[in-house]
Amino acid sequence: METKYVYSFSEGSKEMKSLLGGKGANLAEMTKIGLPVPQGFTITTDACNDYYDNEKTIRAEIVSEIEKHLVELEELQGKKLGCTKNPLLVSVRSGAVFSMPGMMDTILNLGLNDDSVLGLADATQNERFAYDSYRRFIQMFSDVAMEVPKYKFENVLDRVKEEKGYKFDTDLTTEDLKEIVEEFKAIYKKEVKSDFPQDPKEQLMLAIEAVFRSWNNPRAIVYRKLNDISNKLGTAVNIQSMVFGNMGETSGTGVAFTRNPATGENKLFGEYLINAQGEDVVAGIRTPQDISTLKEVMPEIYDQFVKVTQILENHYKDMQDIEFTIENQKLFILQTRNGKRTAKAAINVAVDLVEAGIIDKKEAIMRIEPNQLDQLLHPTFEDKALKEAKIIAKGLPASPGAACGKVYFNADDVVEAVNNGEKALLVRQETSPEDIEGMVKAEGILTARGGMTSHAAVVARGMGKCCVAGCGEIKVDEAAKEIRSEELTIKEGEYLSIDGSTGKVYLGEVKQSPVEVTGNFEKLMSWVDETKQMMVRTNADNPRDAKAAVEFGAEGIGLCRTEHMFFEEDRIPAVREMILSRDVEQREKALAKILPMQRQDFLEIFEVMEGKPVNIRLLDPPLHEFLPQDDETIKELAESMGIAESEIRKRIVDLEEFNPMLGHRGCRLAVTYPEICVMQARAIIEGAIEAKEKGIEVHPEIMVPLVGEVNELKLIRGMIEETAANVMEEKGVKVDYTVGTMIEIPRACLTADEIAEVADFFSFGTNDLTQMGFGYSRDDAGKFLGEYVDKEILEKDPFQVLDQKGIGKLVQMGAKLGRSVKPELKLGICGEHGGEPSSVEFCYNTGLNYVSCSPYRVPIARLAAAQASIKNPRY
Amino acid sequence: METKYVYSFSEGSKEMKSLLGGKGANLAEMTKIGLPVPQGFTITTDACNDYYDNEKTIRAEIVSEIEKHLVELEELQGKKLGCTKNPLLVSVRSGAVFSMPGMMDTILNLGLNDDSVLGLADATQNERFAYDSYRRFIQMFSDVAMEVPKYKFENVLDRVKEEKGYKFDTDLTTEDLKEIVEEFKAIYKKEVKSDFPQDPKEQLMLAIEAVFRSWNNPRAIVYRKLNDISNKLGTAVNIQSMVFGNMGETSGTGVAFTRNPATGENKLFGEYLINAQGEDVVAGIRTPQDISTLKEVMPEIYDQFVKVTQILENHYKDMQDIEFTIENQKLFILQTRNGKRTAKAAINVAVDLVEAGIIDKKEAIMRIEPNQLDQLLHPTFEDKALKEAKIIAKGLPASPGAACGKVYFNADDVVEAVNNGEKALLVRQETSPEDIEGMVKAEGILTARGGMTSHAAVVARGMGKCCVAGCGEIKVDEAAKEIRSEELTIKEGEYLSIDGSTGKVYLGEVKQSPVEVTGNFEKLMSWVDETKQMMVRTNADNPRDAKAAVEFGAEGIGLCRTEHMFFEEDRIPAVREMILSRDVEQREKALAKILPMQRQDFLEIFEVMEGKPVNIRLLDPPLHEFLPQDDETIKELAESMGIAESEIRKRIVDLEEFNPMLGHRGCRLAVTYPEICVMQARAIIEGAIEAKEKGIEVHPEIMVPLVGEVNELKLIRGMIEETAANVMEEKGVKVDYTVGTMIEIPRACLTADEIAEVADFFSFGTNDLTQMGFGYSRDDAGKFLGEYVDKEILEKDPFQVLDQKGIGKLVQMGAKLGRSVKPELKLGICGEHGGEPSSVEFCYNTGLNYVSCSPYRVPIARLAAAQASIKNPRY
Repeated sequence: METKYVYSFSEGSKEMKSLLGGKGANLAEMTKIGLPVPQGFTITTDACNDYYDNEKTIRAEIVSEIEKHLVELEELQGKKLGCTKNPLLVSVRSGAVFSMPGMMDTILNLGLNDDSVLGLADATQNERFAYDSYRRFIQMFSDVAMEVPKYKFENVLDRVKEEKGYKFDTDLTTEDLKEIVEEFKAIYKKEVKSDFPQDPKEQLMLAIEAVFRSWNNPRAIVYRKLNDISNKLGTAVNIQSMVFGNMGETSGTGVAFTRNPATGENKLFGEYLINAQGEDVVAGIRTPQDISTLKEVMPEIYDQFVKVTQILENHYKDMQDIEFTIENQKLFILQTRNGKRTAKAAINVAVDLVEAGIIDKKEAIMRIEPNQLDQLLHPTFEDKALKEAKIIAKGLPASPGAACGKVYFNADDVVEAVNNGEKALLVRQETSPEDIEGMVKAEGILTARGGMTSHAAVVARGMGKCCVAGCGEIKVDEAAKEIRSEELTIKEGEYLSIDGSTGKVYLGEVKQSPVEVTGNFEKLMSWVDETKQMMVRTNADNPRDAKAAVEFGAEGIGLCRTEHMFFEEDRIPAVREMILSRDVEQREKALAKILPMQRQDFLEIFEVMEGKPVNIRLLDPPLHEFLPQDDETIKELAESMGIAESEIRKRIVDLEEFNPMLGHRGCRLAVTYPEICVMQARAIIEGAIEAKEKGIEVHPEIMVPLVGEVNELKLIRGMIEETAANVMEEKGVKVDYTVGTMIEIPRACLTADEIAEVADFFSFGTNDLTQMGFGYSRDDAGKFLGEYVDKEILEKDPFQVLDQKGIGKLVQMGAKLGRSVKPELKLGICGEHGGEPSSVEFCYNTGLNYVSCSPYRVPIARLAAAQASIKNPRY
Repeated sequence: METKYVYSFSEGSKEMKSLLGGKGANLAEMTKIGLPVPQGFTITTDACNDYYDNEKTIRAEIVSEIEKHLVELEELQGKKLGCTKNPLLVSVRSGAVFSMPGMMDTILNLGLNDDSVLGLADATQNERFAYDSYRRFIQMFSDVAMEVPKYKFENVLDRVKEEKGYKFDTDLTTEDLKEIVEEFKAIYKKEVKSDFPQDPKEQLMLAIEAVFRSWNNPRAIVYRKLNDISNKLGTAVNIQSMVFGNMGETSGTGVAFTRNPATGENKLFGEYLINAQGEDVVAGIRTPQDISTLKEVMPEIYDQFVKVTQILENHYKDMQDIEFTIENQKLFILQTRNGKRTAKAAINVAVDLVEAGIIDKKEAIMRIEPNQLDQLLHPTFEDKALKEAKIIAKGLPASPGAACGKVYFNADDVVEAVNNGEKALLVRQETSPEDIEGMVKAEGILTARGGMTSHAAVVARGMGKCCVAGCGEIKVDEAAKEIRSEELTIKEGEYLSIDGSTGKVYLGEVKQSPVEVTGNFEKLMSWVDETKQMMVRTNADNPRDAKAAVEFGAEGIGLCRTEHMFFEEDRIPAVREMILSRDVEQREKALAKILPMQRQDFLEIFEVMEGKPVNIRLLDPPLHEFLPQDDETIKELAESMGIAESEIRKRIVDLEEFNPMLGHRGCRLAVTYPEICVMQARAIIEGAIEAKEKGIEVHPEIMVPLVGEVNELKLIRGMIEETAANVMEEKGVKVDYTVGTMIEIPRACLTADEIAEVADFFSFGTNDLTQMGFGYSRDDAGKFLGEYVDKEILEKDPFQVLDQKGIGKLVQMGAKLGRSVKPELKLGICGEHGGEPSSVEFCYNTGLNYVSCSPYRVPIARLAAAQASIKNPRY
């Protein structure tokens, strides 16, 4: 069979996207289901490829197929291209398989020439409209098809308006436009070195060739490269007859959504203008009318349109965003597509469609963009208020939400202000563990230094508290208690507002919208839980965070960082005493003071988690992080410990490290100070026994951090098992517990088969794995990572989105080697990536049993896990 | 066929090691070639395994085979076990396939009892000897076979000697010994709960069982685990008739080497004692005679012995270490083994044996332990002088050699002292690039901080200069200009001696032996070069190091670190100016000052290397390393740059990093400051053109450090190519150059296929790969790495010996992925491991084209490469 290169709209369907392109298939589909679409035909992607295969010429065979379809179209419309009486005008548009915004613009009104413009004037009874259309066509054709710079035409328009003292294009008279048309044609001749083509068929063929050429313009090539679209697909070309909404009071044009895109309410939502073209709506000179008023103006058209919208929504099974034109009391549908919507609307629409039996639950789940849920779970600023607010700086969107309050520059001042009933923002150069109480009390946190994984960012996300970090554009002068930017100074007690989802910092108080979680959200999430095949746990260091996470659907704790407990005010003195001990005996004495507090922490967490698994990581950070830096605290500590200040200072210097990230931390501490590990193991098992005695089910998992060699884990597992056995014998109660390791050192992935022999579980610590795998210090990478993303060296910040090509390969290797010796090895992830949708999908596809993320990202991870299961079910 | 469990010495050979064990096979071999070996038989390893398979019993079948061989032995010797006239005595020894020092000791004189002791007295005409032998046998048998603690017997001996006022065991009379024998038997009875066995066959069977049991004693199990020896091998048992060197003036015992083990001289070397047993030689009461004097004392025996030594050396084709005994004018050979030797002797012996046609060149190459060559290439302390020297501390053996001089505490003082004709040691807390001149002038370097890859260690190895680093036992007080240890204080100008091969620090001046490289060394190395199939390059940053390396046989430069040039006194101001520049323009101005100096550096290196490839790495360290820390230099710099001190301090703070190792360095600098890369590329190409114009062949390889993502290399390669094209056009001269990357980031190994697309070569930077792969900062790991090796968590320091299991896997992955897209991709290694023999072998087996190491390790790497080729030839 001979290849068919041209399809009229009535010959295609939405399944023919690869041949007709997205737009062409869609126009055909609407034609097929009987909607009033201005008719036309589509030249296929095959024709485009044929063009490139034949040294950029359109073969005669294809030209004649185009001409044949043009004749058919003319017959169908009862109009002829270039005719002086009621001429046929067409639009020419590219239409690739995948939407490619960077490619070619539309050419409208093709078919106008010095003769047919008269025919159009006659048919529309509007000479000004005809010449205005003609000058627009010359400009568009020259720009889009012939690459004559647009500004050359704009300059003429501007000059004429200035000469005549006009403000708007609409002020131009028919005579003005006739003159302009002549000038435009002259520009064309000068630039293209030939007369503006008067033969409409020549216009058409030139336009088609231009679309074919646009497939390989530089923007299009870059766009395809970035989006991984094959260069071999080619683009289709759509030729469609023009309709006019500006043919008088019985014509009009508009846009409507089948439902409210902000709320999802099932009610037509949109606006229109009588006697207008699409661009008049955009120009904003006239105010469009609400779509509901069309009912009174043109009742029949309105009823017809409502029916069409219902047909389209049912047909596409989703909320549609529809463009329409009314030409002389006749309705035409120009375009339909799935409408953009807020998270709230997305959920309501999806749930409504399920309940109406239009889509199934899986489809509903796939319709929601997981990251959108953030909008629902955190307060936001009101759109209107935002528009009026003054942005004074932009930092990193470290923890989503909106917050406003009076600025304070240290934790104590925040606490005092809040206790006095004020709303406060904590503003710091960067936060440290000593700021915790201030962070808890503050509405939000703003720091000048530190990245997306700085202390402020990590802790704030854990708390679900709004945070803008690394806002380098402002100077935070903690001593003077003021913020300085280039323009202004904000003093303690003045109001700021920060948006943790965008990183923007606003002057004064900006009005917030409250958090709104609807019943439909709960319903959707229940479908998510039925569907997903991977568990979602949370990273939580205290009962407060754990409780919040359970409410968000966490099925366990994937990472409980014991060191965060160490920083609390009541225990930091004992921790410091432990670190500064001269010998094991002294250290054990200090540890004995910490033991009951740790036990109580674990007990409370077990209580909140009610039998869900709780993964507790042993002490991880280097010890110097716990030591005081300021003179006063050093002095106090020396006094309370009864030793010389100089001795404390000496020890601080001894513990300093060049690269603490790669230093004496993690399980290396347990190797050199076994007594710390023994204390922690004891606290966990004692806490578990207490919980059990209260009738609470417990599943502690003890996690050894930073293992890079199996012998580390062997040694430490031995200590833990011995301690646990001792405690259980003392108490006469048995507790089931498991011992595993965090896989966060590249070598652990490479030797995961050995490590699996002595581990009950692996939890991939992709934060550190990313740091070491890339050789990027999270704390320092800010100095170049921005430039890396800007220069497109890296597509995304690998601390936010797991780098599947490199770091992901390590994770896959670790998972595969581990399961090769222990098929039932439990695998999880507890890096920041555990709450990022594409990373969650990767984890699921890698066979992990669970992901763990900060409490407020739990719903996002659940949704992402469900979507991954739908794409690639496990059984 | 029935399994044979017992072999007489005359039935075996050296090929039967797996059945007879090492010792048994060796005794059989000597018997086979007709040497006078005291006869006996070996119970096989099969018998041992059979013992374990049968619930630790020796089956009757095996017992009867043993008895049969005992009868044969008695007939052969004309003596009977336990006989009261000239009784047969035997020794019982374990003998595993692989030598296992931790296993079982020897039991001598088995066969003695209350009757046969009389026979021995009669036969030897020496009653005291007989009873002394008996008490020794009881003690040995009880300890070794029955696990009665040795001290219980020693206590009796001590008590008797004290009572009688004796000083030595030799003072004990026959009567004393008879009493002691009775007491020993009583101890045995008390401990073992049975009488000391009087039946010699019972003694024998108990001894054999004890040897079998010793195979699974805890020491043996640990030893096998550590040395990867299978538990299933089992041990053999050797039963050998005793001979006595203490039967009067016609008897004697001795040890001899077939050649001089210190020099390799082909002359019998050894000593002996008349009328003595082996242990008398050890006891040191009598002074042994030089072997040559035996010629006069027993001319026939001497001649016979000389013949035997020649036979043995020819038979084993290596210098032998031989134990012998003369019993009543009859020579017996008790043991022969390859003799331990110095590097010098090893080379001389190997070359001599080749020239005598005894071994071939490959065998000679395999005979030399590569690391031993270090001894030859660096001065050492005289053995005698060392014995008298006082060790005051021990640090890390950072760069081999011996050095002594007056201590000075900063580079300037060293330079001044040396200019005044003194020999100086540079002693620092730790060195920094500012100390370079002092390091060049000093005899050696001693630091209190820093590890094997600290600045001091790396630079010293490059220079071949003796260095002891990280000597934490001493306090270096640079301000007071003194070293303090617990015991003493050493002030500026006092002498110390340091041994960079052991890490020991000695008080005062210790006498050195000079370096001696013989013609045999050159000869052997020429064979090495004929044999090896992998190139050996050197890491050299300047013409001086490059020249030294070429003399040691380097075939190119594998790593020229341009930043070391930046630190030199004449250019550091310009470098600092460049870093402190406010904008690109100012930075380019400063770079323009550095350009001619860098060009000159490269030119000189090209001249030294005469056409050999030169791999130049672009700037690698973080910029803050170049900035001054002390107030004075900051002040000077501010003045010379005409900017405020505060501005410099601010910039220093801005550039500070939390983890510089993972910070803004390597190619990340070239991404953010392209002008630095451009200057360096220009300097390289200009230098190459200048060299070419002088008629020197040049092969520059431009290496981009720290690439973790192909887009980095793409961008920077673009800059280099553009710059090179510009320079070549300006000069009208073309130069061939290549551009590649250091593979030192784990992710680079994981994505090596992508990177290979734009790289002409890979050079594995295993230092950083080890740091990031293990998550160990070289500068900090000292705090726990020692304990890791002590606790056997790591077998070896992975910065010294490449960790093949983990980091090696990354290297293999990088090599494989790289070659998968570019089969001809040139691969090398430039980490410290490039000069470590087992790592060199790994590199060869991984298919690398070259290794690169510090100049003084080049001969070691060449030898290791040749050995790798012999083990596993490439074609």
